[in-house]
Amino acid sequence: VSKVVSNISISLDGFVAGPDDSPENPLGDGGEGLHEWIFDLASWRRAHGRGGGKTGRDDDLMAEAIEQTGATVMGRRMFDQGERPWGDEPPFRHDVFVLTHRPREPLRKQGGTTFFFVEGSAEEVLTRAREASGEKDVSVASGQAIVQFLEAGLLDELTIHLVPVFFGGGVPLFASIDPRTPPLELVEAIPSEGVTHLRFRRAN
Amino acid sequence: VSKVVSNISISLDGFVAGPDDSPENPLGDGGEGLHEWIFDLASWRRAHGRGGGKTGRDDDLMAEAIEQTGATVMGRRMFDQGERPWGDEPPFRHDVFVLTHRPREPLRKQGGTTFFFVEGSAEEVLTRAREASGEKDVSVASGQAIVQFLEAGLLDELTIHLVPVFFGGGVPLFASIDPRTPPLELVEAIPSEGVTHLRFRRAN
Repeated sequence: VSKVVSNISISLDGFVAGPDDSPENPLGDGGEGLHEWIFDLASWRRAHGRGGGKTGRDDDLMAEAIEQTGATVMGRRMFDQGERPWGDEPPFRHDVFVLTHRPREPLRKQGGTTFFFVEGSAEEVLTRAREASGEKDVSVASGQAIVQFLEAGLLDELTIHLVPVFFGGGVPLFASIDPRTPPLELVEAIPSEGVTHLRFRRAN
Repeated sequence: VSKVVSNISISLDGFVAGPDDSPENPLGDGGEGLHEWIFDLASWRRAHGRGGGKTGRDDDLMAEAIEQTGATVMGRRMFDQGERPWGDEPPFRHDVFVLTHRPREPLRKQGGTTFFFVEGSAEEVLTRAREASGEKDVSVASGQAIVQFLEAGLLDELTIHLVPVFFGGGVPLFASIDPRTPPLELVEAIPSEGVTHLRFRRAN
């Protein structure tokens, strides 16, 4: 069954980017440390058109997430920061819906990725993403989109990749989330090398 | 062997007290919800001189924490807020060291609790607390003291009781912690009813 899922790396003190983030320093000071556990995984390298890389538990998790995802939703900020580094052949290889207040023409890239710039509620965007994802899951990327989908009660699963580092400041995942947001419950904790995967689902 | 440990309840979005906390509303709006899993435990009731209460896994954890603790360190804010509700016979029943910039005479209470008001570095306070705790553990209570001990690399174990609620604001556990703070690693995640216990220790 198609689910709405999210995967995000955060610091021990709850930040998804370090202090002093800017267009030139998109992950903030030290922010790239949150993603180091990913860069060398075989499945990640494959998605980026490269060979080799580490296999094992982290790679299995990542491979499954990539394989299961049929469409991605992200905030405008993540798109703006990612567009250049993703290049001509972005790693998504499916439809990506970018939340924005300035809709524009879709941007078709090589390798199967098309970016759609959409306005509307989380429900409306999800309807479009579900059509695109078919039997597969819709992945909600970027902190901004995750909070929006959580508040709307639309996220089925959230996997937090907890990286053992303190930032002391930066972009918090849960800045001023609506306190009426349906709570999450922890389903599973998977310790690994340099990261712990905490799998949450919507509590009933 | 005597360890330096800490136990603290936090919301999903990382707050130890809700929004708008004040002396009249010490836990902030909704903050008492963080501690509901504790109030009815048999071991907690026993520490407060009452009978009955729930047994089981949560109670075993709490009973062990209470039994293993030989001295407590807390911030001034926690003492100020707790002094009245704790009453004439506070539940600690051992020496409590309150971090303050205004040292004063110790405050002896019934039932074995004495509050010492101490100034100095985390190291200095810990030396005194270790003398008082003997073979047992030193427990660091209150977010303020936890951050101070973490930054000094003096906390051996931190157990976070993650309560499935979002606050959207309040008193964060890790507000602007020093980014050079030695990181923690997750050792164990224990799901329970209405709370998940996440046991961390200092990473090596």
